[in-house]
Amino acid sequence: MIIVLQEQATERDVDAIVGIVREAGLDANVSFGLSRTVIGVIGDPRYLNVARLKEVPSVDRVISITHPYKLADRKERPGTSTVTVGDVTFGGPELVMIAGPCAVESEEQLLSAADYVRKAGAKVLRGGAFKPRTSPYSFQGLGEPGLRILAKARAATGLLIATEVVGEQEVPQVAEYADIIQIGARNMQNFRLLETVGRTGKPVILKRGFGNTVEETLLSAEYVLSQDNKNVILCERGIRTFENYTRNTLDIMSVPTFKCHSHLPVIVDPSHSTGRRELVVYAARAAVAVGADGLLVETHPNPETAQSDGYQAVLPDQFADLMIQVERIARAVGRTFGITVDEAAPGHAG
Amino acid sequence: MIIVLQEQATERDVDAIVGIVREAGLDANVSFGLSRTVIGVIGDPRYLNVARLKEVPSVDRVISITHPYKLADRKERPGTSTVTVGDVTFGGPELVMIAGPCAVESEEQLLSAADYVRKAGAKVLRGGAFKPRTSPYSFQGLGEPGLRILAKARAATGLLIATEVVGEQEVPQVAEYADIIQIGARNMQNFRLLETVGRTGKPVILKRGFGNTVEETLLSAEYVLSQDNKNVILCERGIRTFENYTRNTLDIMSVPTFKCHSHLPVIVDPSHSTGRRELVVYAARAAVAVGADGLLVETHPNPETAQSDGYQAVLPDQFADLMIQVERIARAVGRTFGITVDEAAPGHAG
Amino acid sequence: MIIVLQEQATERDVDAIVGIVREAGLDANVSFGLSRTVIGVIGDPRYLNVARLKEVPSVDRVISITHPYKLADRKERPGTSTVTVGDVTFGGPELVMIAGPCAVESEEQLLSAADYVRKAGAKVLRGGAFKPRTSPYSFQGLGEPGLRILAKARAATGLLIATEVVGEQEVPQVAEYADIIQIGARNMQNFRLLETVGRTGKPVILKRGFGNTVEETLLSAEYVLSQDNKNVILCERGIRTFENYTRNTLDIMSVPTFKCHSHLPVIVDPSHSTGRRELVVYAARAAVAVGADGLLVETHPNPETAQSDGYQAVLPDQFADLMIQVERIARAVGRTFGITVDEAAPGHAG
Amino acid sequence: MIIVLQEQATERDVDAIVGIVREAGLDANVSFGLSRTVIGVIGDPRYLNVARLKEVPSVDRVISITHPYKLADRKERPGTSTVTVGDVTFGGPELVMIAGPCAVESEEQLLSAADYVRKAGAKVLRGGAFKPRTSPYSFQGLGEPGLRILAKARAATGLLIATEVVGEQEVPQVAEYADIIQIGARNMQNFRLLETVGRTGKPVILKRGFGNTVEETLLSAEYVLSQDNKNVILCERGIRTFENYTRNTLDIMSVPTFKCHSHLPVIVDPSHSTGRRELVVYAARAAVAVGADGLLVETHPNPETAQSDGYQAVLPDQFADLMIQVERIARAVGRTFGITVDEAAPGHAG
Repeated sequence: MIIVLQEQATERDVDAIVGIVREAGLDANVSFGLSRTVIGVIGDPRYLNVARLKEVPSVDRVISITHPYKLADRKERPGTSTVTVGDVTFGGPELVMIAGPCAVESEEQLLSAADYVRKAGAKVLRGGAFKPRTSPYSFQGLGEPGLRILAKARAATGLLIATEVVGEQEVPQVAEYADIIQIGARNMQNFRLLETVGRTGKPVILKRGFGNTVEETLLSAEYVLSQDNKNVILCERGIRTFENYTRNTLDIMSVPTFKCHSHLPVIVDPSHSTGRRELVVYAARAAVAVGADGLLVETHPNPETAQSDGYQAVLPDQFADLMIQVERIARAVGRTFGITVDEAAPGHAG
Repeated sequence: MIIVLQEQATERDVDAIVGIVREAGLDANVSFGLSRTVIGVIGDPRYLNVARLKEVPSVDRVISITHPYKLADRKERPGTSTVTVGDVTFGGPELVMIAGPCAVESEEQLLSAADYVRKAGAKVLRGGAFKPRTSPYSFQGLGEPGLRILAKARAATGLLIATEVVGEQEVPQVAEYADIIQIGARNMQNFRLLETVGRTGKPVILKRGFGNTVEETLLSAEYVLSQDNKNVILCERGIRTFENYTRNTLDIMSVPTFKCHSHLPVIVDPSHSTGRRELVVYAARAAVAVGADGLLVETHPNPETAQSDGYQAVLPDQFADLMIQVERIARAVGRTFGITVDEAAPGHAG
Repeated sequence: MIIVLQEQATERDVDAIVGIVREAGLDANVSFGLSRTVIGVIGDPRYLNVARLKEVPSVDRVISITHPYKLADRKERPGTSTVTVGDVTFGGPELVMIAGPCAVESEEQLLSAADYVRKAGAKVLRGGAFKPRTSPYSFQGLGEPGLRILAKARAATGLLIATEVVGEQEVPQVAEYADIIQIGARNMQNFRLLETVGRTGKPVILKRGFGNTVEETLLSAEYVLSQDNKNVILCERGIRTFENYTRNTLDIMSVPTFKCHSHLPVIVDPSHSTGRRELVVYAARAAVAVGADGLLVETHPNPETAQSDGYQAVLPDQFADLMIQVERIARAVGRTFGITVDEAAPGHAG
Repeated sequence: MIIVLQEQATERDVDAIVGIVREAGLDANVSFGLSRTVIGVIGDPRYLNVARLKEVPSVDRVISITHPYKLADRKERPGTSTVTVGDVTFGGPELVMIAGPCAVESEEQLLSAADYVRKAGAKVLRGGAFKPRTSPYSFQGLGEPGLRILAKARAATGLLIATEVVGEQEVPQVAEYADIIQIGARNMQNFRLLETVGRTGKPVILKRGFGNTVEETLLSAEYVLSQDNKNVILCERGIRTFENYTRNTLDIMSVPTFKCHSHLPVIVDPSHSTGRRELVVYAARAAVAVGADGLLVETHPNPETAQSDGYQAVLPDQFADLMIQVERIARAVGRTFGITVDEAAPGHAG
């Protein structure tokens, strides 16, 4: 951390600042001689009260050199850390496809989805039993019966189960059934939920809030990691901007940005970030092209009967085609979803 | 709700749509004759599955005519509804000043703040015992001891107490001490927390999320209202945009917009929406000028020792001056904070 | 300017940087001793090639301490500079109302508008003869005949004339007729137009682009000012955000922000920043409350016949009422539009 | 276009609206029977005065069904239209790489860049002779001498030349030298410049403004197309959002969105959309993965001496590697840049 003083700063101002720094157990190195005095803070400045420093009248600005997160920081581990669940590993050479309906609606619906996503190459089944809905009048999910249906689908197909938790009190219940717990975008800064989920030790998919920065996402990851739970998978799903053709604006560059700053694996949700079925495959291709470690795709056997977000769910046939398209991109960047595709290049559609 | 079909829609398509509408217990009125068939939905469409309608291949678009919220809707009540707590009323002719430090830090600090804000004309004391912090390494509040200090300040000054709740499990505790419970911006879509707080029956200040729209804010209010808790006060506190001179961009026009659509009282937080002490008074003046029903201002007796957000806390002297300035604006729009000010107009500073 | 080096920087790196700084005719002051070496640049760094500095491998970051603009900088002149046109002064204690239709449509329309805005207290008549339209199929303005109508209205009412210029080639023509030339939001970074208008010496209203920052706006002002034209009036008119209830999001805090950084007078356009007639008066009140030096309001004698943006034009009666409301706010902040209003406070509408 | 009336609309209101529609030479089809009357407009509504319709008191909303652009509309032509310049075609199966420095600085610099980009597979050389700079104090380009250097590079290498035009008056000069004229993001709504460039008949790269929507970009294209110039190439280069890790947020989904609505070819500028050299290759890969027809990449033989934006220019070696990476992605989507690459898949970096 570097503290730049105003031109008119006095020696007394400098002493006051050095005092604050030392109080926090850190050391300060004062550099006179410049037109402005500059004070360098030596040691881990995370616990230093920056607000208080800014109050000293002669402080012009306080510049952070180090990241405010620590456990998620790339410096902690070389390369991408891996999160392994059953026989699936996030962050390794093999990409992971997580797919399924937005919400669990019935046993028939989920088993049907589980069957065709598994055949197409998905390794994890998604489906919400608890749904965080903007309106209290919208379908809120089946609750625990939904969790039981997920467990049946796992038993029937061997797929792992990823499902969202919405409230602190449901965490034990969800943790009992789920292989991977998802924290949704609206709850990314629900810090109590982050801590509670973190304590279960279960792998966590942490979705970036649509109004949140890359740095805030890493700090939310830090809430989970600091519960001694190393199994955090970040998920980009689009941010809010003035452009509203797509439901959100997919911030595709957040993937290499996350990877530049953090060792955590990163997946992309091409469904919420576009909100339009016909665009999902493009977002999925872009995600694999920039280096995502997996995808989280909404698909529904009969979108016309879906209770939520059906219009962004890809159809069974489209899903199988999407798998082939992303596999081709994966191979172009030296990776694979572990499926077989025809090597012949597709023709240009024009 | 109006459903516009594509040009090539067939009679069978129309029948399918009418079927979906009737299944939801509503009626449909089909208008052929246009270049495109248009179907009007008769009845309350809130429970209608719009996603499913959009799936019918010949549907071009579904246009909502009514608001998705109901209890918060202006149509429900003429004028602004009032929320009364003790001898303070939000939404009436008299404006309410809520002021105090970001966080409760000590008895001395809070009593000092309570004393000067009361003298300057505040009616409610704010102060966080539980703080939702972006980083797990930042000061998280004193917890219950902080609540007890708030209660002491109330006993000492007669001010009402407003304080934030961060997690579901803390709701009973916070409700025991607080006169008004605040839900912070980061929790605006923490739906479980909204419901839990709603069930306490306590007045609620609901802060708009920095990534959320006016409509979403009203839908979150609906989560509280639907727990049979009519005491919701909306709070604008700035949104995220590309401009980063201020911490957030104060969306000042949300105040008349909220009032145009809803009967709920609206207050403004000029501190978080600017993030700079020297700008707070301007944001406060703008808020009163556009018709806000109150203000929520951070002030600290010694910002240089503050544990959080000290740089946006106004100083005691500044707070007294701010009260005078906003009172002048209040009178210009036919309202008052209930304080006495010198009638002589101030001079132009240039 | 302060250059912070990376931890592993060598003496050779430092020498390279000092060389670049000196090449630009500036001096450098090196501060070893910190965990990171910091180099302070002495002198005006505007002509220094920052990009080149960032290329030196050991440079971690380059921090600008001074503003990139100079002539617009508050440091250049104490207080607000004034722009005087005829008997009207922007930036003094008296606020200036500029009002009129979006586009000049006919002599009858403009004379009618001129008449009622003058009676209500406006000092300047606005009206576009050249309209920058998003679509080539929209009405583009009357062109020079529109300018002649503006001149007639000036002769008939004594009002000053403000009108927009869209292209470089029209500048001489517009300058011949207009008292004040307006540069629209879409042209704020049309640098050739800025220079061409600057060279006329005419007062310029420079509207902030809806995608531009406060700093960029001041740099565009700098393009005009550097043509030895000191008569620049900044105009806030809203920015683009995710919230789309209003046409744009009025960044009301930009007014005190501009004034904090620059001596230039600042006005607000409450019409484009809201895009809804019923909200214009609220935006106008907020603008005066935060210290704007004037307003730019669209009004039309018969909006239902307007060729452009009629839905945001206030009606004649509404305009007269708006003048009274903003005058009350002006007095509350020690200023005036120079009109007479009933001192009795208005009642609270509820 | 569909006009939805308010519930209380009378027959007289309906007559007024039908009158307005007929005045514009269009026909109206009234549909009573719904809870609200709906009026369908028959014919091309582009010249209809929507603002005036909205003024009719009983109009609730006006819904546009057709696009406001016509010549750029996908309906005009099946597939992607192609723009051919010399032996290069945009919009066909072969992708086009345009590369070169941000600004032409010297003959030596440009010839060096031209040489290595050609060898790596670029078909068009870019380089600015006129630079639109946010600050008047920044390097503004060499002007006409820069154009002559570009012409020399073309003669030496056979590459085509793309260069930006900043002002209307420079158009003839730029058109004389350039094979493709670029209109920069800041000038996307400089409508006079669009028309002037359109009239030259030269191929135009139209960059999306960082504050502009997809629809506005197509309307700006319409300004060029309506000058009977069919050679428009759209260019995505990032938009402004709250996330500022990258210089802009690459709106990668705009590429399939443009293609869904328009037949025009679309390229992507991965340099400005990221602003960081190390991210350029990722943005380029994403662009090809979503179906872009080409790339516009900044590269510089010696970025440390660059006069502008050097930090986002990729180095010669990086450029050659980028070509190989994007070629692999191109093949995965059935296309090619026309270069040879080793078929062996790259290893996963981890």
